[in-house]
Amino acid sequence: MQESPSLADLKSVSPAFERYTTQTVLDGLWMRPQLSPRDRSIVTLSVLIARGQAVEMPFHFRLALDNAVKPAELSEMITHLAFYSGWANATAAAGMAKRIFDERHITENQLAPADVALLPLNEAGEKQRAQMVQENFGAVAPGVVQYTTDVLFRDLWLRPGLAPRDRSLVTVSALVANGQVAQITYHLNRAMDNGLTKEEASETLTQLAFYAGWPNVFSAMPVFKDVFSKRATSPQ
Amino acid sequence: MQESPSLADLKSVSPAFERYTTQTVLDGLWMRPQLSPRDRSIVTLSVLIARGQAVEMPFHFRLALDNAVKPAELSEMITHLAFYSGWANATAAAGMAKRIFDERHITENQLAPADVALLPLNEAGEKQRAQMVQENFGAVAPGVVQYTTDVLFRDLWLRPGLAPRDRSLVTVSALVANGQVAQITYHLNRAMDNGLTKEEASETLTQLAFYAGWPNVFSAMPVFKDVFSKRATSPQ
Amino acid sequence: MQESPSLADLKSVSPAFERYTTQTVLDGLWMRPQLSPRDRSIVTLSVLIARGQAVEMPFHFRLALDNAVKPAELSEMITHLAFYSGWANATAAAGMAKRIFDERHITENQLAPADVALLPLNEAGEKQRAQMVQENFGAVAPGVVQYTTDVLFRDLWLRPGLAPRDRSLVTVSALVANGQVAQITYHLNRAMDNGLTKEEASETLTQLAFYAGWPNVFSAMPVFKDVFSKRATSPQ
Repeated sequence: MQESPSLADLKSVSPAFERYTTQTVLDGLWMRPQLSPRDRSIVTLSVLIARGQAVEMPFHFRLALDNAVKPAELSEMITHLAFYSGWANATAAAGMAKRIFDERHITENQLAPADVALLPLNEAGEKQRAQMVQENFGAVAPGVVQYTTDVLFRDLWLRPGLAPRDRSLVTVSALVANGQVAQITYHLNRAMDNGLTKEEASETLTQLAFYAGWPNVFSAMPVFKDVFSKRATSPQ
Repeated sequence: MQESPSLADLKSVSPAFERYTTQTVLDGLWMRPQLSPRDRSIVTLSVLIARGQAVEMPFHFRLALDNAVKPAELSEMITHLAFYSGWANATAAAGMAKRIFDERHITENQLAPADVALLPLNEAGEKQRAQMVQENFGAVAPGVVQYTTDVLFRDLWLRPGLAPRDRSLVTVSALVANGQVAQITYHLNRAMDNGLTKEEASETLTQLAFYAGWPNVFSAMPVFKDVFSKRATSPQ
Repeated sequence: MQESPSLADLKSVSPAFERYTTQTVLDGLWMRPQLSPRDRSIVTLSVLIARGQAVEMPFHFRLALDNAVKPAELSEMITHLAFYSGWANATAAAGMAKRIFDERHITENQLAPADVALLPLNEAGEKQRAQMVQENFGAVAPGVVQYTTDVLFRDLWLRPGLAPRDRSLVTVSALVANGQVAQITYHLNRAMDNGLTKEEASETLTQLAFYAGWPNVFSAMPVFKDVFSKRATSPQ
């Protein structure tokens, strides 16, 4: 397996980049108390998987496990991002994860089986969502609408191996990482309904600035601002 | 050559992802009658090339050939996507395709030569297109405008090795795959002028949901809806 | 190190793609006088790094050095793009650059140290920028706002190893390459304030059409047009 470049490699190409990596990011950003190391690993790995950045995956799969992201959660993250970033992203990530799982002696009995008892569904909320999507797009792309209901919202999102709040964190991170501004409003609201706090959402942007790049975060901030503002003034 | 991860690899990392891949995608999505396996391969490979997803290319180049996409058509797809997704995307795809062509004993005499007799040009339509682009951007980027006319619309699009309808399918797939919402209206209309039916365009979105990710498709659906609607109410 | 595919490789997959690469791009585009080969290399490498396109990096790192981009400038470009496209993009690029630096016997004493005397800051302009960002986003993402001031505008942009005009060229190229249309207005204005001429900005779009793909450039052109127009009619 190709390994992530070492700090010595970075230094031999750019002493400044090595210093930013060590001081600003690893010993700075990752130590900020506003978001746990576990959440930072979830955000960062979501970026790498959603953008297909294999080179950094060995380092960050290991760091995620060290930061107490469970193998079963990594497994569900990859599956979730198949739908939210594209099938080949998840396939490539699975290829990398397999090697790290082998290295750490993680076996299939630590993962959720394919068929599991699903979490209970919020029937009223799901009915409302499905109805809105059906009205908007039922005649445009009936296949998409059907799979969205059957496979995403009545199956994937209800798998218990990754908490809904964490699935939302994965989803929002992937949306920001790929510049999917138009989809953030729905999923940031869902994330906060699922328990992500405003402070965590805010600091997720800080983590994303470094890992998804400043421009993606500056394009996402107006949407976060709008969601925060509307939730503050509407009855919860 | 690095091989695409196997189903067993996927299962060892995520039994659920392997099940979705087998049941939902390979034995489900790909079998739906609304779009031929050949078209699904064109859509899927366009996504992989336009997003530089090398890991899945060996599997999907082979599947495309098995699904009756001709080597000469794959060759033109790669060339087309040099212009519609970036030169390095096509270079990387060519590197992968070379190995599959070698493996399948496909030689240069099965491909179109560099210089070919071009398809006839729709002079009136092209004149209108060129005039609009010249008016909008002639003073902003004369180089872009010139190459767009000379190399794209009076050369690339007229190469006979890939039917205009298929070039359009490649183009629209690449636009959705990279979130290029602002460019979809022109190219979806062109695709339908070139013979892509509404039903095929609709099911292309279903295929893209899995391979380009749900968010890209949800951002594209309003544009598809608008194009479908305007074409339904305007005289064709 | 995996090598970039050769022209013979391209020809064996697509004779037309090889011809476009040779005649249209290498012997055509790169020879146009509106932008220097050095600038074209900066634009092209920025695209490859910002989009993580490793396959073409060996060819273009070498070409950049041949086109008189200094090793110290490449080093700063990679560091700059860590912030403007994402940390893993820069890490992956550093891994590739290391091999080219080794091959060319480029050592750390040809690069800027991590700590350098910074260029003088335009205090008035920076105060205005910081104030606007604080007002807009200070309550939404205080971490982002703080790092933007402290690390980006009071540190990174002032590193002397890459001229502000070149940093801007790198930034604008990365924005167009990743479809970050909403961030172009600020950075194109900054680029022109930093000395990029309208003619150079225009021809940058031509270079980007080939390397970032036509759709990204067609989405960027309206913004370039607007910036050019507003600067022409406002007192400079």
